[in-house]
Amino acid sequence: MSAENTPKRIDHVAIIVRNIEQALTFYHDTLGIEPREIKEVPSEQVRIAFLPMGGPGGSEIELIEPAATNASLLKFLEKRGEGLHHICLEVEHIDETLQEMQAQEAPVLDQQPRLAAEGSAIFIHPKGTNGVLLELLEKKD
Amino acid sequence: MSAENTPKRIDHVAIIVRNIEQALTFYHDTLGIEPREIKEVPSEQVRIAFLPMGGPGGSEIELIEPAATNASLLKFLEKRGEGLHHICLEVEHIDETLQEMQAQEAPVLDQQPRLAAEGSAIFIHPKGTNGVLLELLEKKD
Repeated sequence: MSAENTPKRIDHVAIIVRNIEQALTFYHDTLGIEPREIKEVPSEQVRIAFLPMGGPGGSEIELIEPAATNASLLKFLEKRGEGLHHICLEVEHIDETLQEMQAQEAPVLDQQPRLAAEGSAIFIHPKGTNGVLLELLEKKD
Repeated sequence: MSAENTPKRIDHVAIIVRNIEQALTFYHDTLGIEPREIKEVPSEQVRIAFLPMGGPGGSEIELIEPAATNASLLKFLEKRGEGLHHICLEVEHIDETLQEMQAQEAPVLDQQPRLAAEGSAIFIHPKGTNGVLLELLEKKD
């Protein structure tokens, strides 16, 4: 990867849960982290809540609750249970990053960047990343 | 949790791998992240390498490779394969955090803080955190 396209920071670490409000009994009530608003993301068939830490630019935890229609995430929950789901790294230019990843034969799951909750993203399959579903994200202002 | 003891930031996200050098073919060679030195941590029976991002204070990825004698992590690898292992959040005062977690009946795995690679830490069992092994760490200078 050219230096310019090396990931700049961890944007978030995502935890898949059955119910966000229940998960907040630990992450908010016990740990004390104040969540951002809980959002519905119909295009992804999920509800999400970010847990900000470390001030502006700090990496966050994302809680993800699949909708009843989200077969793929519900299958993940059934198979592995609640827990860590993916890491998201921020990059500067998602189109160039995608080209570099393809040129290096990383197992990219997207032919072109997809619209994510906070920008444009591609996902790398765990088989190319030592078992980690990896999101690379160009944030939008 | 009192506001003072709320976690300040994500310190690192740990990925368990069979071999650190092999994992670096993706995380260094493909993604372009420059690892810190690979360290042996005999007390934990692991080799580790941190992948810094985002400058000072940025959250890092930690690669963990269990030693041949580390039955517990080798069992994890055998059962779940390589992948995300735990999240570590930084706290200010680990003794007070431990007391608060115990008072709130979180399933703390330590009776007292243990010496970790970078400070004093306690671990919370995934059954209390929606499936995430959670490390809370007071860093040492």
